[in-house]
Amino acid sequence: MHNDQNNRDEWTQLGAWIADMPVAMMTNLDADGTLTSRPMWLLGAPDAGALWFLADARSTKMQRLEAINLSFSDAARSRYVSLSGRAEIDTDRARLERLWTPQAATWFPGGRDDTDLVLLKFIPTAADHWDTPRVAIVDVQSLEASLPA
Amino acid sequence: MHNDQNNRDEWTQLGAWIADMPVAMMTNLDADGTLTSRPMWLLGAPDAGALWFLADARSTKMQRLEAINLSFSDAARSRYVSLSGRAEIDTDRARLERLWTPQAATWFPGGRDDTDLVLLKFIPTAADHWDTPRVAIVDVQSLEASLPA
Repeated sequence: MHNDQNNRDEWTQLGAWIADMPVAMMTNLDADGTLTSRPMWLLGAPDAGALWFLADARSTKMQRLEAINLSFSDAARSRYVSLSGRAEIDTDRARLERLWTPQAATWFPGGRDDTDLVLLKFIPTAADHWDTPRVAIVDVQSLEASLPA
Repeated sequence: MHNDQNNRDEWTQLGAWIADMPVAMMTNLDADGTLTSRPMWLLGAPDAGALWFLADARSTKMQRLEAINLSFSDAARSRYVSLSGRAEIDTDRARLERLWTPQAATWFPGGRDDTDLVLLKFIPTAADHWDTPRVAIVDVQSLEASLPA
């Protein structure tokens, strides 16, 4: 059901999955001990070294970035990924213009020239993933029949 | 883009969304300070007082449950929900049998009589949600035309 190897093959698999899931939920610990999450738009192809996201400088400057979880969900394919790591804010405008994609205007209608727009660089330290167990393709009626009454 | 009211109307909306997203990613803080997440199967209709999930006793007994984030993602509809709160393990077998659903056998092939199966009761303390900004229905070519070169 799950696999916590974190080798090259694993990353190749995860990278292919993540490329189909451009919105991640990023969770971090608030100052009061609460865990909160928010959707984040992934830019470009995922890379084992770093994942780049668009963020609003006003909402990230108060966030603690030293411990971050990124989760990716594709319910239609029953694919789920957890990445643990840390993040940094990157204010390089040239990099932002290079990584910007027009689809990101869904979340950032001000476009790539919005001065509150920054890059968030996520550095993964551990990964885990889950995919569809084989039983998922069995239809529900036969499952019901096989279960104890 | 987002709304952090946590009133009755808000919950009614969130509950309707969540009912269409039976798998949540649950994030918690490990003993070493790492944030990790895993998919969790939601049982029954969400309720403002508590959400019930199936869990494996072997994987939850070492987890810290006092600070939890649950995130729900529906990429097809661009709906994202963050619930902050805490969780408790519940070992009431009668409740487990009442809440069990045959679809859960996808994740728990041992069925509802699996002795390692327990209920995880999540008690939300804060909620946030995001839905599709209006610009999402604009096609990409017109977005490209409207962006600075």
